[in-house]
Amino acid sequence: MHCVDKNIIDTVVEISLNNIVRRKGGPFGAVIVDSGTNEIISYGANSVTTDKDPTAHAEVNAIRKACESLGTFSLTGKTLYTSCEPCPMCLGAIYWSNLDKVFYANTKTDAAEIGFDDSFIYDEINKEKSERKIKFVQIECKEAKEVFKIWKNDKDKVEY
Amino acid sequence: MHCVDKNIIDTVVEISLNNIVRRKGGPFGAVIVDSGTNEIISYGANSVTTDKDPTAHAEVNAIRKACESLGTFSLTGKTLYTSCEPCPMCLGAIYWSNLDKVFYANTKTDAAEIGFDDSFIYDEINKEKSERKIKFVQIECKEAKEVFKIWKNDKDKVEY
Repeated sequence: MHCVDKNIIDTVVEISLNNIVRRKGGPFGAVIVDSGTNEIISYGANSVTTDKDPTAHAEVNAIRKACESLGTFSLTGKTLYTSCEPCPMCLGAIYWSNLDKVFYANTKTDAAEIGFDDSFIYDEINKEKSERKIKFVQIECKEAKEVFKIWKNDKDKVEY
Repeated sequence: MHCVDKNIIDTVVEISLNNIVRRKGGPFGAVIVDSGTNEIISYGANSVTTDKDPTAHAEVNAIRKACESLGTFSLTGKTLYTSCEPCPMCLGAIYWSNLDKVFYANTKTDAAEIGFDDSFIYDEINKEKSERKIKFVQIECKEAKEVFKIWKNDKDKVEY
């Protein structure tokens, strides 16, 4: 079982501090390491406001950089360290990238206390779609289902 | 109230079909439009396998392109059309980008039936962290809390 390396926790917290001192974005840092050796593969810091990209959270940036560096869309065998509990977007990115494990410092409640919506978005997920702040409306479309069938029956597709 | 434009649903389904025919990625397409005029601002198609980026879902790609095109990290006043119900990662991106509304065709259950983990990831969110497939472990760190306090008290920060 992969154990936590406290030095890497210190590193992600340092990234989060440098990020606000340098006015690059929110107070969040992340690092991806090899689960076996703890060798660092990528660093990420929140850059939403400077990159003008709402998806540029520390974890997403670290995942995208690790994949670019390794030339793969799967991070099996890798562990994410982050200065704060991942929001639903980052949690999804963690699952899609097949990371082994996540170590985090601050919680989503800590994030809520300094004005971030992480906890709010988690609450929204469990609401009826019609009760959410942002409405999600399904439109029946048989052509869309046809496309899914073509994908399912395609023997040459690249799965992920 | 913004009503659905069936032509735009047809467009996102066409994007999803072209995407698999051209072997660019999974069977998913998205479009972002102005909520008032329905003018198209950006297009997105899934490019996970060709960009080697697990975050490159149709919705995330469309959001990033719209923000780049408009020079902003907020898509207030914009609506997302997508060929499939957004996964938790894309739902998070939708909230962080402040979109008005989402119209989608296929459901997360349809996605599960052709081998995608959308529904599985939604289920994981509500599990105890110790019961999840990917373990999320909190490491107490007072320095991390200090960074959050610095952010909270910073009067010159750029909020998002």
